[in-house]
Amino acid sequence: MNKLKVSIVGGSGYTGGELIRLLLFHPNIDLRQITSESMVGKYLYKSHPNLRKVTQLKFSSISELEKCDVLFLCMPHGQSQKNIEVYKELADKIIDLSADFRLKNLDTYKKWYGHDHEKPNLLNEFVYGIPELHRERMKTSNYVSSAGCNATVSILSLYPFFKEGLAEKDRTVIEVKVGTSEGGNKFSASSHHPERAGSLRSYMPVQHRHSAEIIQELSFGKLISVNFSATSVDMVRGVLATIHLFTNQKLEDKDIWKLYRKYYSDEPFIRIVKEKEGIYRYPEPKLLIGSNYCDIGFAIDEETNRVVIIGSIDNMMKGAAGQALQAFNIMHGLPETTGLEFPGFHPI
Amino acid sequence: MNKLKVSIVGGSGYTGGELIRLLLFHPNIDLRQITSESMVGKYLYKSHPNLRKVTQLKFSSISELEKCDVLFLCMPHGQSQKNIEVYKELADKIIDLSADFRLKNLDTYKKWYGHDHEKPNLLNEFVYGIPELHRERMKTSNYVSSAGCNATVSILSLYPFFKEGLAEKDRTVIEVKVGTSEGGNKFSASSHHPERAGSLRSYMPVQHRHSAEIIQELSFGKLISVNFSATSVDMVRGVLATIHLFTNQKLEDKDIWKLYRKYYSDEPFIRIVKEKEGIYRYPEPKLLIGSNYCDIGFAIDEETNRVVIIGSIDNMMKGAAGQALQAFNIMHGLPETTGLEFPGFHPI
Amino acid sequence: MNKLKVSIVGGSGYTGGELIRLLLFHPNIDLRQITSESMVGKYLYKSHPNLRKVTQLKFSSISELEKCDVLFLCMPHGQSQKNIEVYKELADKIIDLSADFRLKNLDTYKKWYGHDHEKPNLLNEFVYGIPELHRERMKTSNYVSSAGCNATVSILSLYPFFKEGLAEKDRTVIEVKVGTSEGGNKFSASSHHPERAGSLRSYMPVQHRHSAEIIQELSFGKLISVNFSATSVDMVRGVLATIHLFTNQKLEDKDIWKLYRKYYSDEPFIRIVKEKEGIYRYPEPKLLIGSNYCDIGFAIDEETNRVVIIGSIDNMMKGAAGQALQAFNIMHGLPETTGLEFPGFHPI
Amino acid sequence: MNKLKVSIVGGSGYTGGELIRLLLFHPNIDLRQITSESMVGKYLYKSHPNLRKVTQLKFSSISELEKCDVLFLCMPHGQSQKNIEVYKELADKIIDLSADFRLKNLDTYKKWYGHDHEKPNLLNEFVYGIPELHRERMKTSNYVSSAGCNATVSILSLYPFFKEGLAEKDRTVIEVKVGTSEGGNKFSASSHHPERAGSLRSYMPVQHRHSAEIIQELSFGKLISVNFSATSVDMVRGVLATIHLFTNQKLEDKDIWKLYRKYYSDEPFIRIVKEKEGIYRYPEPKLLIGSNYCDIGFAIDEETNRVVIIGSIDNMMKGAAGQALQAFNIMHGLPETTGLEFPGFHPI
Repeated sequence: MNKLKVSIVGGSGYTGGELIRLLLFHPNIDLRQITSESMVGKYLYKSHPNLRKVTQLKFSSISELEKCDVLFLCMPHGQSQKNIEVYKELADKIIDLSADFRLKNLDTYKKWYGHDHEKPNLLNEFVYGIPELHRERMKTSNYVSSAGCNATVSILSLYPFFKEGLAEKDRTVIEVKVGTSEGGNKFSASSHHPERAGSLRSYMPVQHRHSAEIIQELSFGKLISVNFSATSVDMVRGVLATIHLFTNQKLEDKDIWKLYRKYYSDEPFIRIVKEKEGIYRYPEPKLLIGSNYCDIGFAIDEETNRVVIIGSIDNMMKGAAGQALQAFNIMHGLPETTGLEFPGFHPI
Repeated sequence: MNKLKVSIVGGSGYTGGELIRLLLFHPNIDLRQITSESMVGKYLYKSHPNLRKVTQLKFSSISELEKCDVLFLCMPHGQSQKNIEVYKELADKIIDLSADFRLKNLDTYKKWYGHDHEKPNLLNEFVYGIPELHRERMKTSNYVSSAGCNATVSILSLYPFFKEGLAEKDRTVIEVKVGTSEGGNKFSASSHHPERAGSLRSYMPVQHRHSAEIIQELSFGKLISVNFSATSVDMVRGVLATIHLFTNQKLEDKDIWKLYRKYYSDEPFIRIVKEKEGIYRYPEPKLLIGSNYCDIGFAIDEETNRVVIIGSIDNMMKGAAGQALQAFNIMHGLPETTGLEFPGFHPI
Repeated sequence: MNKLKVSIVGGSGYTGGELIRLLLFHPNIDLRQITSESMVGKYLYKSHPNLRKVTQLKFSSISELEKCDVLFLCMPHGQSQKNIEVYKELADKIIDLSADFRLKNLDTYKKWYGHDHEKPNLLNEFVYGIPELHRERMKTSNYVSSAGCNATVSILSLYPFFKEGLAEKDRTVIEVKVGTSEGGNKFSASSHHPERAGSLRSYMPVQHRHSAEIIQELSFGKLISVNFSATSVDMVRGVLATIHLFTNQKLEDKDIWKLYRKYYSDEPFIRIVKEKEGIYRYPEPKLLIGSNYCDIGFAIDEETNRVVIIGSIDNMMKGAAGQALQAFNIMHGLPETTGLEFPGFHPI
Repeated sequence: MNKLKVSIVGGSGYTGGELIRLLLFHPNIDLRQITSESMVGKYLYKSHPNLRKVTQLKFSSISELEKCDVLFLCMPHGQSQKNIEVYKELADKIIDLSADFRLKNLDTYKKWYGHDHEKPNLLNEFVYGIPELHRERMKTSNYVSSAGCNATVSILSLYPFFKEGLAEKDRTVIEVKVGTSEGGNKFSASSHHPERAGSLRSYMPVQHRHSAEIIQELSFGKLISVNFSATSVDMVRGVLATIHLFTNQKLEDKDIWKLYRKYYSDEPFIRIVKEKEGIYRYPEPKLLIGSNYCDIGFAIDEETNRVVIIGSIDNMMKGAAGQALQAFNIMHGLPETTGLEFPGFHPI
């Protein structure tokens, strides 16, 4: 098979950098151009110091983009929808890592993003980018909108329960602990090391936009509500979601094991982590750094019908670049784990 | 006023060390003896390196204890109830920092601690040690049982809502993020730095014993249930509780401000932290290191009747030694903030 | 004794905030005005969140400053020398925490700071602000220039050796590990949390300006040279200096103990930390957070005449605000430890 | 080419785990057995949680070892020399990651390790395991003794200077900052998270055993001495060496660039990192996590003949498992970077 020509629009940020790192080592990809208007002509390693000596590629301008097979879009919110026609001209397949094409309902979009969508007719052309839920559509789709990081871990943790109608639909509480790479590379007073180091910042106790994605993906027929909050901890990569799910019937450990196995036993990137002893009894984001796994564990509160589900991913991987590449593999009929085999470190 | 003679039983652990540090600088206290059976005859600074050059006191054995005015008990769970008669002979007033005398219901105690209480008749002699709830009883009491750290921050955050009957009684979800000092100074494979550093450990997703204290203090008439989980983060001191409270009526920001002011405006150690801008919009545990404050903030989810309450304390201070000293001050008619004026650091 | 009226010029930065915290609790000080041109009229806690509920003071403008007994200057480099006459009109005594009046030699100043000093005739009016070296002059002086943080710990660690002529004068290597609060509150791409967290940044391998202070204070007759480097680690407060000193004669442990005792046994803020066992065998900056101690330890390399000296301070305290207050106490005949009794935390 | 059969003796520790992770993904290796006497019969992921779902291999006992092509030894110091004959029977080629066969001089060995070597006649059969210095011998050797982590980064940073006779031979000061994974997985009071977190521990100011390796490799003709100290910082992986080298002639930036290029321009795993601007002007260990690079930067002190050299590696990779695999590739005529392509992360 010939290598596929791939370019990236918006490659100087964190997500773009992670994607470059993956694509450079993907056996079926010929990485051609990476744009950054502010870095045109400079070596990639000026933005991504880990790529020093790894590649001699330089940043291009969007205006220099040539036709290719696949275009990844890694721009700030709002940019993809603005110029999507241009990108469609350049490539048959597009994978957008921004939030622009995730929500399918126009009113919902307006409610959470505060403005009308500029290309409403395209929303349904983009498959929502969690392969575990939409693999079949991806296989034949030209457009994928990669899912939000917090949404991904929340949805994967909860999907079997909502799909099977086991959840009380409005009581779920999702409390995510996130690293600071989620905020991107724009610095501010708030991200200044002496202020942010050692902090536990309640940066979005309510109204986090990823809530809308969770609601969209977990509402089967009847609209659910989720009670979401996000706290930033002193780590760079990783998300840990502690989810309080209330079931509408008594479930035991073995029931939940069976449930997860039904949905995920063949999934290459989902692991159920629930140990009776040892150091790592539940998922831990630090073990997932660089990997594309979503680890899921759970504990039952025997007093109530509460199940505490603990989900974890690397927000840069399964929460962004890794999941986008997983979609790429599916769209091209490649083995789904190609270029995503890295297992994570221990210790780290 | 003559200084009060004070001794500590069990002073080589973290809580004991913090208490020593406070008592050494309290103007009305003459700190006499600190026991540790494993450290008898050694300088305090051998266990508490911050006290080098600060005091020349050495550890004693329990068998050497002399009569004093007040005895603080800082021993592992189960030790206080075993020998409480001995301590009552030695001092008129006792402040117990362990969990032994916190729960007032024998069945509840057995359920959560797995064994019968050894001194059931003494349970009601001990005032539950949160001054903001039980100040009047403390003034005339000889025995105080200091509250659990996670329980303290949860109860103080929620008290006005439950006291006023504003909460849906079974839906509250409390997700606390805790530092590693909560676990005490016993090392293990799990506390080994390469394993614990950078970790987000779901060490108690369900069944945390502090739940019982929260239920006890917030059930007014009808027994409530709380949905509690605890995650250990890579910090040493501090607790941040992210609490999802569902109210039985629509509340606005000003209603909640008014509610907290009603209960806490005269409280020296409670601050409402809710800023519209700036770096520190909600409570942050790192700002509380060494202080006795409990900071409380909140955000309303306008979609539902959810209020996300964010409470924070230093588990060693308002969660242990500081709160115990606050009780001491109340029991002796001293200004409540004596020896507890330290405001915390910034930056840190 | 009446309280002394004290004001601070430039109080919205980190050093200013630390000084405010100390002065508010000093029994002999009436803190009057704190200036910040960017924060005029706002509560102090807007810059220093730890001071919420602690003080109701607001920031003033320099133009509003009233006469007082002592003025502390906490401004960026270059500001003090520009307006020093104004400040001398306002107060009899001035303690400058900037670098403006530290160096006594004009050529040296120009060499390290790149421009001529604006008030050369005033340089010798300011006592270099390390009390352990210049206590007697401070007692009768009206002007003190507080020493640099890295310089302070290096000088105190080395002083007895150089004073006694025991050091090879050009071979000393000083490698300091510093926290990010040293850089102040100006944020940048370099201080952005995802970049700075977990980093070990060689921010000043050569040419650190504090070298000049070390040379000035340790050259007795013959000018020495020092080989200084500074590495920033992932901590906010604290300095650890690892110093490789080569002695001109064989020294044993007991010789060095004797040497340090000769110079420092009566010093309230210097501790020799050298344990054969236990966790904390040498100085540790985290134990010094908030304290004014300078801890010094050492180890002898028996192969050579090398002594590795390990010195540590809190850069905000003994390295800035604490040492300035220590000078204040000396200048006013107060007990030197007044307002500086805080011993530090363990664990932290 | 048929895959080579490889087994590991002592695979439950940190180094063993890292090596397993690499070998599992090496295209020319068939990983057969991994021994651990304490974990016999258990899945690898019980010790190495990152390998969950990655491999179904279980730990074996040494007594079960079968013949193979290459044996890696990852045991605590002293074990390899004890049983080396057994291992030589099992495999033609052996790569030992312990310190047992690093030093070639018997007296030196005894001096630093405190006992006679058990197999003195084998010392010279083992090539000292830094490929950049001993590549040619490795190509035809059956035995390699992998170098110490701190020694590796120090030697690679200094080698060109000493080889060319440019260094003052006794003045070099090496101050390394190390992570806690260097200490292995044995927990203790000292590694307990509340004690170790945020610490800067001077764990080996003098007498570090890696000094002996540095002396051995950098003494060309005349024995040098090195002044080494090691400080443990709050990180898990990584070494940063700040080296103060005094040259016997004035060198300029371009001279040193030329020097390094002469020795290292063809080296796949050495990068010279010296930027005039940007965030990462010198090597940073966090950028090297998981990579086999040794990054080297430098700054010249124009006042003296001092060059500050900053070297950095991942102690688990170029300092242990990665370098061992690099040797393996060389011994088998494989491309040297096979299985070692991982470039490191940014941000992390």
